[in-house]
Amino acid sequence: MAVVLVTGATGFIGRATVDRLVRAGHDVHATSRRPPGARDAVTWHVADLLREDPSDVCRAAGASTLVHLAWCVEPGQYWTSLENLDWVAASIRLVRAFSTSGGESAIAVGSAAEQHSSALYPTAKGSLRSLLHAGAGALGLDVAWARVHQLYGPGEAAGRLLPDVISSLLRGSPVRVSAGTQERDFVHVDDVADALVALVSNRVNGTFDVGTGRAIAVADVVRLAAAATGGRDLIEWDAVPLRDGEPACLRADVTPLLEATGWRAQVTIEQGISSMVASAKVDDRR
Amino acid sequence: MAVVLVTGATGFIGRATVDRLVRAGHDVHATSRRPPGARDAVTWHVADLLREDPSDVCRAAGASTLVHLAWCVEPGQYWTSLENLDWVAASIRLVRAFSTSGGESAIAVGSAAEQHSSALYPTAKGSLRSLLHAGAGALGLDVAWARVHQLYGPGEAAGRLLPDVISSLLRGSPVRVSAGTQERDFVHVDDVADALVALVSNRVNGTFDVGTGRAIAVADVVRLAAAATGGRDLIEWDAVPLRDGEPACLRADVTPLLEATGWRAQVTIEQGISSMVASAKVDDRR
Repeated sequence: MAVVLVTGATGFIGRATVDRLVRAGHDVHATSRRPPGARDAVTWHVADLLREDPSDVCRAAGASTLVHLAWCVEPGQYWTSLENLDWVAASIRLVRAFSTSGGESAIAVGSAAEQHSSALYPTAKGSLRSLLHAGAGALGLDVAWARVHQLYGPGEAAGRLLPDVISSLLRGSPVRVSAGTQERDFVHVDDVADALVALVSNRVNGTFDVGTGRAIAVADVVRLAAAATGGRDLIEWDAVPLRDGEPACLRADVTPLLEATGWRAQVTIEQGISSMVASAKVDDRR
Repeated sequence: MAVVLVTGATGFIGRATVDRLVRAGHDVHATSRRPPGARDAVTWHVADLLREDPSDVCRAAGASTLVHLAWCVEPGQYWTSLENLDWVAASIRLVRAFSTSGGESAIAVGSAAEQHSSALYPTAKGSLRSLLHAGAGALGLDVAWARVHQLYGPGEAAGRLLPDVISSLLRGSPVRVSAGTQERDFVHVDDVADALVALVSNRVNGTFDVGTGRAIAVADVVRLAAAATGGRDLIEWDAVPLRDGEPACLRADVTPLLEATGWRAQVTIEQGISSMVASAKVDDRR
């Protein structure tokens, strides 16, 4: 079992990953600007990685493995935010400090859009990926870059596609969507967390797509959400344009991660959407 | 005329650039960890950009134009040094602070190797280039990236090809070189400085090769140095291997910079080598 330091541990992927790392028996240290109340088996470090020197946290944790998830993720803003630049700089400081404090293996997450857009978010993620791979030898680190495809699941932030569609349909409000012809590889947050745990257990170098290996039209995913909520007539198709330069199809190549770790996605899109609808109904009753 | 802030101003390109900016009538501010004695018409700011917050320097300079030259350049080390990562982070902090302090236009230098190697130096330069172009709009900056080809000239650091070849030949010592079949676009430091001044005067966005537009075999350059020093018999050819993955030919595409600014290289390789030999002889007599 490893001593693992998780950044962005209170985020969407972070929460699921911390839970699974603890269950797998790892000694989990986690950073957050605002850690939750004490929890068994997780050592929390209060840190603002964007503004503070991470050396103290790295030394205090003494981790062999870093799972770096912290980034700007605010829906509607993260794609073009200048904070993407700051997160590249902060991530460099972090891996330098982690390496100096005896770290051995670093895992970080990117996006399928890295290869398909010159916007700030994908450019920043793609640049950090290149920098970490080029620096791995000199840093004395194994570096695994998890290129996460179309992430979704219960607990996903409002402002993103599925949470907004589902909550509107449950309220009986109309939903304006694009034509939805673009195909994406939707991958459930629990599967992503499992993939990260698999990368912690199998120390490997490289870039690994994290997805199901199947692409599905966004329109079909919206139809599944409508079927699960009974709100089929509320969908207004083709009411918003596709984003400029949006690729027609993004599908994960799952073979490298399967061969390196044995991981493969388990949650079907139908199961995933059911779990989101169930969770949204619970939230509604609160 | 513009208020210009030059980083790395005491470096090889920096010295030549500061001189020319002053002669062109610009109000020149310059940073260095160890500024030289006071000089007319240059305002020096003591700063260690790798370790310090650059906000104060940017505010104090109040420049509209940034010429960012500071980087790790130690011969024999810069290609693989982890400081390349730190310079990416420091450069991000710098352009953020420059933008916040009212900057309008940023010029930075890269390398022809950016597109041809996954080593740390070219990867770091290439990543910064992508980040600055992707961030230009949100930063409110025009960004010109000067991709400098095979830089040389009087004042070049020991440990680099031509200074070492020339000083050995002048001492009558044998010189061990590769087969020298690789062709490079050798560009004189004075031409590079002129190109940067042209980019200061013509605010443009984009990536611009800085070279002569002609590639010459490294062996031919070594022969020219031998002819200029009279040390032809001292050359031991094919005594060191070519670097792995070294591209056969790199030649600048000079059209974009010519069209954007009217600049073109003026110094021939024969003139450039003569000036280096003359300067090395003066150094020898000191």
